[in-house]
Amino acid sequence: MTETSTPSPRTRIRRRAYAKYDAATFHAILDAGLLAHVGYVIDGAPYVTPTAYWREGDRLYWHGAAASRLFRDGKTPLAVCVTISHLDGLVLARCSFRHTLLYRSVMAFGHAEEVTDAAEKRRVLDRLIDRLYPGRSRQLRPISAEELTATSVMTMTIEEATAKVSSPEARGGVGVIDTEADHANAVWAGVIPIHTVAGQIRPDARLLVDPAPPPNLAPYADGARFDDVLRQMASQLSAL
Amino acid sequence: MTETSTPSPRTRIRRRAYAKYDAATFHAILDAGLLAHVGYVIDGAPYVTPTAYWREGDRLYWHGAAASRLFRDGKTPLAVCVTISHLDGLVLARCSFRHTLLYRSVMAFGHAEEVTDAAEKRRVLDRLIDRLYPGRSRQLRPISAEELTATSVMTMTIEEATAKVSSPEARGGVGVIDTEADHANAVWAGVIPIHTVAGQIRPDARLLVDPAPPPNLAPYADGARFDDVLRQMASQLSAL
Repeated sequence: MTETSTPSPRTRIRRRAYAKYDAATFHAILDAGLLAHVGYVIDGAPYVTPTAYWREGDRLYWHGAAASRLFRDGKTPLAVCVTISHLDGLVLARCSFRHTLLYRSVMAFGHAEEVTDAAEKRRVLDRLIDRLYPGRSRQLRPISAEELTATSVMTMTIEEATAKVSSPEARGGVGVIDTEADHANAVWAGVIPIHTVAGQIRPDARLLVDPAPPPNLAPYADGARFDDVLRQMASQLSAL
Repeated sequence: MTETSTPSPRTRIRRRAYAKYDAATFHAILDAGLLAHVGYVIDGAPYVTPTAYWREGDRLYWHGAAASRLFRDGKTPLAVCVTISHLDGLVLARCSFRHTLLYRSVMAFGHAEEVTDAAEKRRVLDRLIDRLYPGRSRQLRPISAEELTATSVMTMTIEEATAKVSSPEARGGVGVIDTEADHANAVWAGVIPIHTVAGQIRPDARLLVDPAPPPNLAPYADGARFDDVLRQMASQLSAL
């Protein structure tokens, strides 16, 4: 993936208006999420597994128990399509046809391989923790050899990717697009934003420390937008 | 899919604790979401497309522009894996290995076919609108023949499905599970809930009606949990 990649037939989007191909757009969408949907093929059949993921440059990482299907049955390097999507809103137009969603999504294509080097595996697992809770990996005891064996980490270089962004900015106004003729319809139209937010933090019952969340978790305020939290955590992490 | 289905090798989950196979669990997870990730295979390669979906009984429906890849290149009936996931929280344990997510997910397997009968297509498209905004389809002008042609609706019967639920209820306490030995670690542990919520509604600028949202949209209050809204809308719809 380069700064601007020329789309191949696989990633060309027919509906040009919402297609974005620059790396900054890709990275912003990828960095705003935690749950990826990893698609792969086993014996000709499609599977889509949800999993926690994270990005470093043009690489994606994701992990799961060693027992999961992808790692159990998959031959690596395994061709995968990793899709990350954010639902941002509901668009109510003046006709049925123009009702739509606001969203941001990336489909990233590549070949997944397992991270087998123990030191590298520890490094990327620490990064998963520190991406969400900057500095936390250093507050925890080291990962044991047994735990490392029981965890699988997959990685792939993004070979091709395509992004789609349907936002009020891309659509104009609040995001409703109607024909001039339909503007005569006296029906309510508008946008209902949808956000992913943090809820009220619940400390475990058996803490040996202050149950109030530690300062590095402050961005996870009740009601805080999760993509904003992730951006703040990325800043905290790069300052460490 | 029956009330309780015996898992095949494809859908058997190794990590039994979070595997649920009853129809009520499947349906509750499916009905709590709007964005599905549809996995399919073209020329041996995996693709995962995010799309709006809805459920009727044991059938799933999803739609998109007629130009999208799935409808352009796909031979139907096309084997698909439709995965719906809800991220519910972040679990911070006393060791790296036991950090995890709270989530609910369904992987549904079947064969997708296009809805081609015009009357049926109108019916299910109206249902997509009314699922989100009960009664709205009747407030809108009828879908034109051209619009109907430009819209594709896919459907599949759920032939097999598997659900995974990782909740505080399934895990005990707030959701943190640590070894007894790790309870000696004086590090903060707990759960950060993650919710999908409605934001502040934005009316279109050119309305011929009161810009305040109509009464049937009342459940979309600023900050309302989206899965609660969908439950209320389902009740409203069944009362119409």
